[in-house]
Amino acid sequence: MSGEDTFAQPHKADLKQENEQATAESRQESQPAAEAAAAPAAATAAEQSPEQESTYRSLVLSGHGGYDKVKLQIKKGKPTPKNGEVLVRVKACGLNFADLMGRQGLYDRLPSPPVTPGMECSGIIEALGEEVTDRKVGDRVMVLYRFGMWQELVTVTVSHTFLMPEEMSFEEAAALPVNYITAYMMLFDLGNLRPNHSVLIHMAAGGVGIAATQLCHTVKDVTVFGTASASKHEAISQGGVTHTIDYRTLDYVDEIRKINPKGVDIVLDPLGGSDTQKAYNLLKPMGKLITYGAANMLTGQKRNLLAVAKTWYNQFSINALNLMHANKAVCGYHLGYLDGEFELITQVVTKLLELYRQGKIKPRVDSTWHFEEVGDAMRRMQERNNIGKVILLPEPKKEVPKKEEDKTDEKKEESKSEEEKKEEQQEILKSREN
Amino acid sequence: MSGEDTFAQPHKADLKQENEQATAESRQESQPAAEAAAAPAAATAAEQSPEQESTYRSLVLSGHGGYDKVKLQIKKGKPTPKNGEVLVRVKACGLNFADLMGRQGLYDRLPSPPVTPGMECSGIIEALGEEVTDRKVGDRVMVLYRFGMWQELVTVTVSHTFLMPEEMSFEEAAALPVNYITAYMMLFDLGNLRPNHSVLIHMAAGGVGIAATQLCHTVKDVTVFGTASASKHEAISQGGVTHTIDYRTLDYVDEIRKINPKGVDIVLDPLGGSDTQKAYNLLKPMGKLITYGAANMLTGQKRNLLAVAKTWYNQFSINALNLMHANKAVCGYHLGYLDGEFELITQVVTKLLELYRQGKIKPRVDSTWHFEEVGDAMRRMQERNNIGKVILLPEPKKEVPKKEEDKTDEKKEESKSEEEKKEEQQEILKSREN
Repeated sequence: MSGEDTFAQPHKADLKQENEQATAESRQESQPAAEAAAAPAAATAAEQSPEQESTYRSLVLSGHGGYDKVKLQIKKGKPTPKNGEVLVRVKACGLNFADLMGRQGLYDRLPSPPVTPGMECSGIIEALGEEVTDRKVGDRVMVLYRFGMWQELVTVTVSHTFLMPEEMSFEEAAALPVNYITAYMMLFDLGNLRPNHSVLIHMAAGGVGIAATQLCHTVKDVTVFGTASASKHEAISQGGVTHTIDYRTLDYVDEIRKINPKGVDIVLDPLGGSDTQKAYNLLKPMGKLITYGAANMLTGQKRNLLAVAKTWYNQFSINALNLMHANKAVCGYHLGYLDGEFELITQVVTKLLELYRQGKIKPRVDSTWHFEEVGDAMRRMQERNNIGKVILLPEPKKEVPKKEEDKTDEKKEESKSEEEKKEEQQEILKSREN
Repeated sequence: MSGEDTFAQPHKADLKQENEQATAESRQESQPAAEAAAAPAAATAAEQSPEQESTYRSLVLSGHGGYDKVKLQIKKGKPTPKNGEVLVRVKACGLNFADLMGRQGLYDRLPSPPVTPGMECSGIIEALGEEVTDRKVGDRVMVLYRFGMWQELVTVTVSHTFLMPEEMSFEEAAALPVNYITAYMMLFDLGNLRPNHSVLIHMAAGGVGIAATQLCHTVKDVTVFGTASASKHEAISQGGVTHTIDYRTLDYVDEIRKINPKGVDIVLDPLGGSDTQKAYNLLKPMGKLITYGAANMLTGQKRNLLAVAKTWYNQFSINALNLMHANKAVCGYHLGYLDGEFELITQVVTKLLELYRQGKIKPRVDSTWHFEEVGDAMRRMQERNNIGKVILLPEPKKEVPKKEEDKTDEKKEESKSEEEKKEEQQEILKSREN
């Protein structure tokens, strides 16, 4: 269905593929070829070699399913920015839970395949559309979009770009928008975080978890309870989590009650299902539950209907009278549904960049992966092995691997079973951690 | 049932009733007679005449039902403050919606009859229990309690008393605690009110409505939509409501959408039932609905089972996923269920008294009624005729009435039907407004 078999899968794409033909389907889902052909020949970024000029690399979700549904494509031409748009040469992209949900068909803000996922990236402005006055070619920007950012070149509305501070790397800039805007708006716009508050942060080693922990410490005397598997406790403690809890071996509710018998002021809930009810019960009077995901639905690389049904069935529901008698707040947050609130979001980004300049927040990059490795990148996040942000790089993977064993293993790759590959990847990843 | 027929109804109680015998039931529900007998003979307030020393006036809910279920009793003796308590000679009491709900048996924080209602009062400290160091005899205080404040003398835990600013009248002090704490915590702790926000305040001429309107204007550029019947619009406009809406003749949702097509940032919802759903729909993204009552249940002086059932049936309910996709918050607030949060409440009262001293808030007293007139006071509030706070005075009604027509009518009172009395009262009240 939806053309998934017609997609080329140029996995070991290298620098010599510049003239490969894009399929008809890929032209339809991304920039139309006619438009690409009409692109001005000028405005080539300095670091771009002339022979690459007329193609760019793009990740495309070919259909709903496992990791292999996201494929690398080489597209012809160069997109032309329309009025009010800029063309950005992308240097780094962020990977988010919504992308994982989208791959499984569980995120309705991502259009049907074939489509390019990706809600955020960073890069350099390479061309300006008409009526763009507040950006110039060469500006380093980070970008927040509904989807479509996992490409080497993107055209985006200028209001969705934010100038990067000089000292910020492209990887940090790609790690910042989704996680930090989410954490900031939850803690400050909904949670009303104040001195002496206590906050429960689930998945404290994830992108939002680390952002939220840092933001908690911009307010005086905030206590952070953070759940993560034991191997990540040292890292999240150093990052500011006051009480680490291994949710795999302990009941986090019991652990929190031992320390705070009355519960906590704020729970950030990315899990959904029965954990939302637990979060509600854990709130002190005047406490706030902020639900922002349904990670419990994601139990494997393909859609698990049982997990989806169970999360749905156990979905938290509350009526007005109960809320009133409990003096509690239940809030929902999802950045993906805040299209059209760019004034609000720009205000938040302005505050975040100020905090970054003051050294109060700093995105933590877990690992970087070239577009060719997107499947492994998604697996790392989906299996909760990351500490911080998983970053994708449009730049092709160099022929010389970072580690010797990678190169040796690469030769055998084709003959391995999926299971073997998976186990091996885990080992490699463990050796990369910190 | 529950002794309602055994209650004396000394409605025209005057200064000569000091030695009237309290019934056995009244002794049980208030201060035990033995304890009262043991009260020290000293600490008589200066303005209290010696012959009144051993009795005090108390309103008692004798059973669930109409206005006549709240009866005036004369109790013997004087309560003795225990450790950590003070004895307060009450000068004014506030009337609240919870008291009206309680009379109908719809408020589970009020114990079963016979019981004295009343969540707030103001007065003068007349005696100190042991271990009370931060209050002295003669201090003017306002008091917040779960119930029991509609009496001439009350013993209360010292932490539930707040010193009144010098310039504050007893009537203002009795009007402040419930309404202003409620409005403050809803707007600032839950609603996170900020500059440029828009707020919908239902029943904008009520006690909470007026408090909330004033508090909205402590923040820059807040737009207030206020619903009230047309006759009150001038008063609430002067009080700070930006857009007045007559909910009796217009659809308030339509009216607000005409001015703010995207909706509002905060809705304070005292109505419940289907109005809560309307409030939720009216929220902008990141908006907050704060539900704090079910006034829709109160449609007459006696419990209306149909109204209760309808309000209950139409009760708003929401699940986590919907909240998340909408980026909205649903909060419940009820001061009556915040027992044990006195640290939090003391912080709020401290801020409120500071705002009062700065002239930024000022309770508006709608009308004052002697204990003998409690039925009329309740009717005034229940029929939504008040603009501001309805206040009860323990002090007996003087024999010379305020207006000539009152005196004339008093003679005929006994022979009038309930309907006649009601109509007449409305007329009198209209003449008193403002």
